Amino acid sequence: MAKYPTSPLAPAAFPDLPVISGVSFATAEAGVRYAGRRDVMLALCAPGSVLAGVFTRSATRSANVCDCQAKIDGDGPEGAAIVVNSGNSNAFTGKAGDESVAAISDAVAGVLGLPAARVFTSSTGVIGERLPHDRITAKLADLAAALDPAGIAEAAEAIMTTDTFPKGAGAEIVIDGKPVRIAGIAKGSGMIAPDMATMLVYIFTDAAIPRADLQALLSRLTNRTFNCITVDSDTSTSDTLLLAATGASGVDVTGSTAFEVALHGVMLDLAHQVVRDGEGATKFVTVRVTGACTDADARTHALSIANSPLVKTAIAGEDPNWGRVVMAVGKSGAEADRDRLTIRFGDILVAENGWVAPSYTEAAGAAYMQREEIEVAVDLGLGTGAATVWTCDLTKRYIEINADYRS
Amino acid sequence: MAKYPTSPLAPAAFPDLPVISGVSFATAEAGVRYAGRRDVMLALCAPGSVLAGVFTRSATRSANVCDCQAKIDGDGPEGAAIVVNSGNSNAFTGKAGDESVAAISDAVAGVLGLPAARVFTSSTGVIGERLPHDRITAKLADLAAALDPAGIAEAAEAIMTTDTFPKGAGAEIVIDGKPVRIAGIAKGSGMIAPDMATMLVYIFTDAAIPRADLQALLSRLTNRTFNCITVDSDTSTSDTLLLAATGASGVDVTGSTAFEVALHGVMLDLAHQVVRDGEGATKFVTVRVTGACTDADARTHALSIANSPLVKTAIAGEDPNWGRVVMAVGKSGAEADRDRLTIRFGDILVAENGWVAPSYTEAAGAAYMQREEIEVAVDLGLGTGAATVWTCDLTKRYIEINADYRS
Repeated sequence: MAKYPTSPLAPAAFPDLPVISGVSFATAEAGVRYAGRRDVMLALCAPGSVLAGVFTRSATRSANVCDCQAKIDGDGPEGAAIVVNSGNSNAFTGKAGDESVAAISDAVAGVLGLPAARVFTSSTGVIGERLPHDRITAKLADLAAALDPAGIAEAAEAIMTTDTFPKGAGAEIVIDGKPVRIAGIAKGSGMIAPDMATMLVYIFTDAAIPRADLQALLSRLTNRTFNCITVDSDTSTSDTLLLAATGASGVDVTGSTAFEVALHGVMLDLAHQVVRDGEGATKFVTVRVTGACTDADARTHALSIANSPLVKTAIAGEDPNWGRVVMAVGKSGAEADRDRLTIRFGDILVAENGWVAPSYTEAAGAAYMQREEIEVAVDLGLGTGAATVWTCDLTKRYIEINADYRS
Repeated sequence: MAKYPTSPLAPAAFPDLPVISGVSFATAEAGVRYAGRRDVMLALCAPGSVLAGVFTRSATRSANVCDCQAKIDGDGPEGAAIVVNSGNSNAFTGKAGDESVAAISDAVAGVLGLPAARVFTSSTGVIGERLPHDRITAKLADLAAALDPAGIAEAAEAIMTTDTFPKGAGAEIVIDGKPVRIAGIAKGSGMIAPDMATMLVYIFTDAAIPRADLQALLSRLTNRTFNCITVDSDTSTSDTLLLAATGASGVDVTGSTAFEVALHGVMLDLAHQVVRDGEGATKFVTVRVTGACTDADARTHALSIANSPLVKTAIAGEDPNWGRVVMAVGKSGAEADRDRLTIRFGDILVAENGWVAPSYTEAAGAAYMQREEIEVAVDLGLGTGAATVWTCDLTKRYIEINADYRS
């Protein structure tokens, strides 16, 4: 299905995800843009489900995102549906874009017996071309008939665009003696930057939790997961993360640390998989900044390093070019003192006191850079602010993928 | 001399620059890093010359930059010297970096009979390696003996690093019936972004003008030239622009519009040449933003477009992917209204009212994108704020150049 070979950073296999009671999935070949592959997925959440969401902050966000944002605070006992197509993002399509969303929502509502206000749609793919939504609505009866609680793996494949592997993560924990399950899928490999870049993420759980608590939890955990990854600093017009809790486990997880930890793990796993499928990526890079004046300063420095084309190309070339890390810290705009900087590659002390460390050898740095997983750690020596972000290297294949994406 | 073939966007030839009375140049092979090429240049400005400068704002700027900043406000009747080496940036070299600058300054002062406070140094190249300054000071006697008013073209070559062509621009105007001349050289092709990225620029004129006026003029024009170009959004630790006025023409240009226009032209020409030598560049791109709420907003949008890897790779692929322009406007953080955006490629109206323009055809867009010079114009429809920035495309060769720069 993928035009490019699977990322060398991909997990060995799609995980065996727990079935979430109260959720079922179906996929179809609608031919929105791609031929010969499933490009639409439908997820149905049973009556009583509550949904939370986070969305791109782009000023030019898609009609689907605007519609989801308008609906996400709503409540309804009827359950909810999520419909996602790949191949066309329905972004920057003017009034026609709104009409497509309404047409799909109304049709799904009709087929499934839900209010249109409980139908959430996402579209991902090319920007600015009218979405042929009739190709999607034509498949709805088939989709409804095919709904299957075990269909999540196919759903993960249907939402892929330039992704080279489907992304899934799950958890099963026991709270108050009863099992609670979480299963999530994601897509995304380019146009990835904080503020929810071209990512679509759908997470389901059978936990019971009030909507407001679910939303607060989701927002908090997004800031420590999806908002800490960057592939190319570009932010999509379509990013959407929806979290649905069906309550079918009968376990109220409000305030549960165990549930928060498990959900955090699922979200971080999915976020890391998105980086691992970064367009053209050959290295998974963790950037850890400590000793900053504030956490916000640490984040600014970390993103400046993680988004620097010169840092990313050096890593691609397995070049321990720590001078470019210094450069990225210097340009970030956040506070830094050249002579207090400490830089490490993994456990290797590279630079301190404003210069290369006496113990550092180029051979040690070069050997470290050959790893598939690289950690760049910077301590600013100024305070206690800290941040961690994840990114990948920048390779010729990124250019190849993005220079001919449409043609 | 250059490792990579000359940029396809290079001017046909190095220009025939006017000789500036009161300035002479010399170059030498010091073997700082490169073998078999001239890597040091010396420029001597006659007694009575005044200097102005602008420098990188990086928090990790090089020892040379700090030293220039400390000296630039000084006055002295003795003239001034500028010494530049390529191959090693002397940045992030701790106390040793300061010592190298002092050693070079003192040695130049001794050879030329100037106070050390009137010796300005720049270093460009790899960050974090000790500058072998004795290789430079060993050549000073030869350099002093070789000083030649016509030596500016060789000087432009000596300061190159990954540049694929030497950069020069000049002007000759008549004020009050007397000729006034300007000649400048520049280097830079990567790590280029506003706030004076890896650029070194030296401009000389025989105009007479008080130092404070020269500095004000230089700062004002820098904001409309060098601070409006970006290759890769990375900001160097070494950027330096020095402007020396010898006064030898006998023409006081204080407040002269003709002089300002001529100087602006020289600076813009040099800035454009830096973009034209952007690492791996095959397209020269002008991004023009109008109709923003403020000029600052317009600049934010323009830089967001010009720095977007997805926009830049689309241009490299000759793909009229205007959706990515929408994306870049959306992510910039400055005010925008999706439905008021107008996008043009050159004279071609691409999108308006939140969607593709009815008259637009993909064929017209694709044909336009085959040009070597591309203009992307965005009108936000919100106010009167405007900005123009210049950049280049992002190609595989950028990755190639930067993944193996040191090895």
